[in-house]
This record gives sequence, structure tokens and C-alpha cells, in this order.
Amino acid sequence: MSQLAKLSPIAELIHRAFKNEQFAQGASLFLRLHPADQADVFEILNEENRSQLLRHLDIPTTADLFDELEDQETAEAAEFISLERLGDVLDEMDPDQAADLLGDLSPEIARLALTEMDEPEDVLPLLEYPDETAGGRMTTAFLCLHPQTTTAEAIEYLREANPDTDVPYYLFVSDETEHLVGVLGLRELVIADPQTTVDEVMDRDVIKVSAMADQEEAARLMTHYDLTVLPVTDAIDQLVGVITHDDILDVIEDEATEDIYRLASVADTDLEPESAVVEQIKGRLPWLLLNTATALFAAWIISMFEDLFVKVAVLAFFQSVVAGQGGSAASQNVAMIVRSLALGKIETKRVWAILLRQLWIGLLQGIIIGVIIGLGVGIWQGNPYLGIVLGLALVGNMLVAGIVGTLLPLAFQYIGQDPAMTSSVLVTAATDALGFLIFLSLAKMFLPLIIQYLPY
Amino acid sequence: MSQLAKLSPIAELIHRAFKNEQFAQGASLFLRLHPADQADVFEILNEENRSQLLRHLDIPTTADLFDELEDQETAEAAEFISLERLGDVLDEMDPDQAADLLGDLSPEIARLALTEMDEPEDVLPLLEYPDETAGGRMTTAFLCLHPQTTTAEAIEYLREANPDTDVPYYLFVSDETEHLVGVLGLRELVIADPQTTVDEVMDRDVIKVSAMADQEEAARLMTHYDLTVLPVTDAIDQLVGVITHDDILDVIEDEATEDIYRLASVADTDLEPESAVVEQIKGRLPWLLLNTATALFAAWIISMFEDLFVKVAVLAFFQSVVAGQGGSAASQNVAMIVRSLALGKIETKRVWAILLRQLWIGLLQGIIIGVIIGLGVGIWQGNPYLGIVLGLALVGNMLVAGIVGTLLPLAFQYIGQDPAMTSSVLVTAATDALGFLIFLSLAKMFLPLIIQYLPY
Repeated sequence: MSQLAKLSPIAELIHRAFKNEQFAQGASLFLRLHPADQADVFEILNEENRSQLLRHLDIPTTADLFDELEDQETAEAAEFISLERLGDVLDEMDPDQAADLLGDLSPEIARLALTEMDEPEDVLPLLEYPDETAGGRMTTAFLCLHPQTTTAEAIEYLREANPDTDVPYYLFVSDETEHLVGVLGLRELVIADPQTTVDEVMDRDVIKVSAMADQEEAARLMTHYDLTVLPVTDAIDQLVGVITHDDILDVIEDEATEDIYRLASVADTDLEPESAVVEQIKGRLPWLLLNTATALFAAWIISMFEDLFVKVAVLAFFQSVVAGQGGSAASQNVAMIVRSLALGKIETKRVWAILLRQLWIGLLQGIIIGVIIGLGVGIWQGNPYLGIVLGLALVGNMLVAGIVGTLLPLAFQYIGQDPAMTSSVLVTAATDALGFLIFLSLAKMFLPLIIQYLPY
Repeated sequence: MSQLAKLSPIAELIHRAFKNEQFAQGASLFLRLHPADQADVFEILNEENRSQLLRHLDIPTTADLFDELEDQETAEAAEFISLERLGDVLDEMDPDQAADLLGDLSPEIARLALTEMDEPEDVLPLLEYPDETAGGRMTTAFLCLHPQTTTAEAIEYLREANPDTDVPYYLFVSDETEHLVGVLGLRELVIADPQTTVDEVMDRDVIKVSAMADQEEAARLMTHYDLTVLPVTDAIDQLVGVITHDDILDVIEDEATEDIYRLASVADTDLEPESAVVEQIKGRLPWLLLNTATALFAAWIISMFEDLFVKVAVLAFFQSVVAGQGGSAASQNVAMIVRSLALGKIETKRVWAILLRQLWIGLLQGIIIGVIIGLGVGIWQGNPYLGIVLGLALVGNMLVAGIVGTLLPLAFQYIGQDPAMTSSVLVTAATDALGFLIFLSLAKMFLPLIIQYLPY
């Protein structure tokens, strides 16, 4: 928010300059910004300004801008420039970003843009890997040395390499069969004696990931081992790319968004508050419809107790208290389990210990809340047995919440599904239905005693 | 989970070795692991094994292990070693981790441990900054050059520097008044002519953060500008430390945990499923008690319609359907707003456009679900007016959900509170209370028509 608030005035100035046909001035304002800020300003310009601006940027600036824009925005911006120019921009972009852009264009445009590129060979291998894999996140812009190279030669190689190559902190070492055999930090290279061979100073314990591994596996390795760069190898262990730390930040943020959205029953993790109405409904309505089914099931359970409400209308006031408290407690459980699973903090063999602890907490919280609500309602309604029924039902439903909120996400993880899919809808279905059932069954058992205290 | 599953057998072997008093063998198994894995194994060993293991590790290994352990685990492990040894370990640890450990020890032990250190001056400045600030996350282990140094001299300096210094990829440049004036990538240093001065090759546009800034600001800058290292300056713009990319990963993960927990009404973001029962209740019960208050308020609203239930018990079946759908839709809204705010994607001036769009979506989803449930229940109960009342109430409550779920988190952000604090409890309070009110008021209005179709 603060970032955009700071940049909005600049977008405003650029807009005004373009409106007055001061194109050079508008573009030069833009050029003074860091590419990351250029992307933010670009995103708040209107379509006409975007198109005008792109006409006044050179190829390298356009490539830097495209590297920084969100995927969808890049694809839209690409439509404003000619195919020939797009080919040049793709050549200048980071290979991984170029590959993402090509994937977001229509197949026909992508094919034509590829033919316009001078060096499609950096990008083509990246198009083979699905988006969510390590291969889909990697870049081919890395430097690779031979074990017998001297460090002086390696420095010379570094000097001659394209300065845009993304990964200057670590150099990878592969043998004649192109197998990854070591890694060499730039610092070790610099301080080594110039005649030493790479072989002598490199680290042979290379942590790497397979190109087909899930991007989360790559993120986990980089976080766990504090890596800035992770080499990616293909099926026969040849080095095919590297993943850099900034890509992993994106993965971690995407995964957190996914968890938050799924826990709140939003199926489409790309949604934002201003996404198109039809997209939002597509991503949200299915869970609400599932909620409809479970809510009607709960209504059906209540309907089995119809005669109760005729005799004791007051039960209708409090049935939702029991269901609601269970739902809230279960959401707490689910959040803790889902987050602990995501951060790799739950051991399989601890499942029963965790369940036991959560049951214990459910019991204690149930007793505390049951006593408070039971006493309060008993006094309010002048009906001690109504209070007792409510209190007991709350204890029961808090135990249900402990079981469901713990086991459902663990079960989802066990069968290979995202535990965050155990969103509130599913867990609440259980605490609602069982909450009503427990409360109304207890009320039926205690009916003669409750009726005794009714004013009518 | 997979990580721990892989490491459990090693922990088992170490445990067995120690049990058979084969201490050297147990320790050597441990030493073969990467420090990050050592930390994971250490955490699943029992207390006795931890203590035995620490007796068989040398100072540098212990320091590496302590650098990797979770803060709380480090403080517990520090109790197993003598004060003199602890001083040596603190000297070898990363200064930022050493400062964290000193902060977690009892003040008396921390004071004594500091007197046992040979180089407390690396750690002392870090103790001044609160945990959640940029200063609290930074390390003092960085390298700083003079503008007039030649690149050859800089490389010599690098060669002589402590190899444990954490940040070998970027060197910072400060003038005689110790003000930060530039930054120099190691790659630029390596490929520069040896007689060039640092002044000529450094980048003068340094992105930096104030030591007292929130750690989230540091994380935002590093993510936005794709930085591996962020320099930290004090009030008079002198370089006092650097934040490295791995620290920022921790910040981002902590922030995501915080959002997920707060959205699910868990107040204490350090809780894990196996945290102590009393800690969990402290971090969870307050929100459930707030929920109790709002649930009783909703019950009071329902109680004003007591005579309705006596006449039309069937209303009790469906009141929760209206409240529940509103609650689910509102949770979806809150999740999207909170996440967009966290990722800096919401502009202040777009608030009304967002609200309008969410109202529109609420209306459409309300109509779709209202028609489905209205028709279904109308047919099930053979009571068209009951269906109409339900349908209208659903539309109304979905609009309420759109308003509350959008404006409540934005309002929290506006008054400087965490928008994720608009957790389900608060939003659900509104959709529950208003859901019941809308449904029962409509039922009262349509009462003569509904009664007409009742079987009794």
C-alpha cells in the first residue's frame, strides 16, 4: 500500500505528460525508476498510456520491465508491440521469464515470436517443464566450469560472460559427460591462488533438485539449507538450469496465498478483490454450493427434532451457539495443523500424541466455555436444566472440533491432498451437524426437566 | 514431513549408539550431516541424548548447530554446556544468532556468558534493537570498503577476512564519516581492472533500510528489488549491519503464519499442535470467549422472535443456513482482502471500486444460492413462502457478507491494526446476528402466508 501510494503521483505525472503529448518527458520520468518500481507504475497506468509508453522504451528497458511485471500483465503488454520487436525483447529477457511469457501467449503468437528470436535455444528447454515444477521455475542463464580449469581462467571466463547472466555468486562445475560434480562460490574463486584448478577448491557436496520435482521441494531445499542458488538436473543427472532465491520467494508467497485461500474456501488462488466478477464467482461459488449441501443436511438433522421446538421454542435461540463455538475451535485446530504441515514440523509418529493433546485442550476449553454459557443462560432463562444441556453440548462439540480439526487435515495430507483443502466448509459441516445433534439429543433427554421451568 | 521421516532413522541410530555407550560412534554419525539436518536430528533426540551429544561436539560444530536450531531449542541446549564453553560457542556463532540466543537466556546467564566471550563487540550492538525490527534481524558480519581502495586491495582484504563472514557476494562502501556511499557486487570486483578504485566501479544507488524500521519493511524491500543482502543504517545513516536473504525467508514465513493464525482466531502465532496445553489455551481461549459474547448476542436477537418458533417450529431448521452461508462468503472476502493487503496489491483510492465489485458478487452469489435453497426448501417443506423468505434472506445476508468482509479488514488496516485480526470471529458475529435478524424479520412479515401452508 505504501509502495503504491508513493508511486501513484509518478503514474499521474506520466499520464499528464502523455496527455499533453510530451512523450519524451513521460518516458524519461519512467526511466528514472528502478525496474521493480517501473513495473508497479506500469500496472497502474491505463491501457492507452501503457501502449504509448512501450513505444518510447528501448528493447533492454522493455525486457527489464517485462521481467518484473506479473505474468498476466506481461502477456497483455506484449500485445502492444510488434512480433519482430517481441522477438528482440524475448532475447533480452531472463530466460525463465521469457519462457513464462511464451507460455501465456496464444500458441500461434508464441510460435511466431519464437521464430523472431535470435537465441531461442536458451528458452526452448524451459518450455518442456510444467509451471509448478523445479524445471518450470529455473533459468538457463548460469555459468558452468570444467574441473581442470584454473581459477585464473575461470575469472577470465567470468569477465567475458554476458553481464546479464543471472547467477554470479556461484559457479557450477560439470565433467566431460556434463554431470554436475561440484559448486564453487565466487568468493572462494577470488581468494584462491590463480594457478589452482577448480577441482581443488570446489565443494563436491552439491545440493540439487530434479527438474521434474515439485517447486515446493525446491523451495524446501533452498530454505532448509539457506541456498541462494539451487542447481537443477535432468533425469540423467546433467545440469540443465538453476533456481535463484527470488524465484523461491515467489513460490513461498504463492504457497502461503494458496493455504490462506483454501482455508477460507476460495478455490482459485489467483483471485484478487478486483478480479473479474465471473472469475470470482467461478472460484468461490463451488465451495458455497458444497456449503449449501452440508447446511441443508444440518437443517435435516434439526428437522428430526421438530416436536421439541413446538414445546420448547427457547432451544432455537441456543442451538447455533453450540455449533458456532465448535466451528471456531475447529478452525483454530485446522490452521495450526495446516501450517505445521506446510513448515514440515509434524512427524507421522506423533499423530496420536497430537490428537490426544487436542482432545485434552478441547475438553478444557469446552468445560470453561460450557460453564460460562451454561451458567449465563441458566440464569438468563431461569432454567437450570437448559443451562446444563447447553454446557454439556458445548463440551461434546468442542471434543468433536478437536477430533475433526486435527484428523481431517492430517487425513488429507496422508492421501496426498492439500491439507488446507480441509477448509472451514468441510470442518464446519461436521461441527454444525454434530453440534445440533448433540444439543438437541441432550435437550430431548432432559425435556421433562427443562419443561418444568418454562414460564408457559 | 518427508524430511523428518528421512532423518528419524539416523536419530534412532544415534540414540542406540548412546544407549550402548558408543559415544564416538553416535557423534560421528551426527557429524556426517549438513548443519541444517543436524538441527532437525537434534530436535527429535531426547534430553539425555542431546546433553551427551553436546559433550562430544567441538566448539565450531556446536556453534553451527546453534545457528540452525530454532530459538527456543538453542536456549534449552545452551543449558547443557558450561558458561565458559557457551562464551566460546557464542564467539563462533553468527552474530545475529548469538544475539538472539543471549536475548532468550535469563538476564543473569546472558550477562555471565557475555563476560566469557572474546569478541562481544560483534554482538553487543545487535542487542539494542527490538526483535521485530530490521536491526533485530541484521548481522554485523559484513565487509566494508573505502572508496579509494583499489580492487586489487579489496580482493586482498577479502582474502584476509574471516572466512565465516556471512556476506561474500556484496561489499559495502562507506566514506571517512562511515556513511554508506555505495555497493559493489563480488562479480564486478573480480572482473574489474586490478588498479581501478572501488569508487569507480561501485553502484551508488544503494537500497537500504533504517535499523528501527519494521522487519516487514525490510522483507518488502528485499522481495520488491530481488536483493540477496540489504544494508541497515542507523539514525545518522551509518552502516551498522546487513540483512541476508535467509533471514527474510524467515520473516516471510512468520508473517504468513501470523496471517493464517489470526484469520483462524489463534492469537499466539508461536503455537504448534504440540505446544503446552496451557500455552494453547492462553492463545486460543480469548477469541472463543469473544465468540461466546457475540454468539449470546445473536441468541438474544433470536429470542426476540420467540413467538414465531411456537407458531412455526420449522423456522428453527433453516435460520442457521442463512447465517452459515453469510459467514462462509464473508471469510472468502476477508481472505482475499487480507492477502492482497499483505502483498501490497490494494490501492487506497480503489476501495470503493472493490466494495462495489464485492457487493455485485454478493448479490449474484446470493441470487444463485437463494434460488437453489429457496426452491429446494419450498418443495421439501411444501411451503412456497418459506422458500421465498429463505431465498430473500440469503440474498440479504450475502450482501452483508460482501460489505463486512470487505470493509472490516480495510478499516483495520486504515487504523493501523493488522487486517488479519478481522478474524472469522468478528466477521461471523456480523453475518450471524444480521443473518438471523434478516431471516426472522422476513419470516414475521410473511407469517400469515407461511402459516397457510403448514400441515398443522
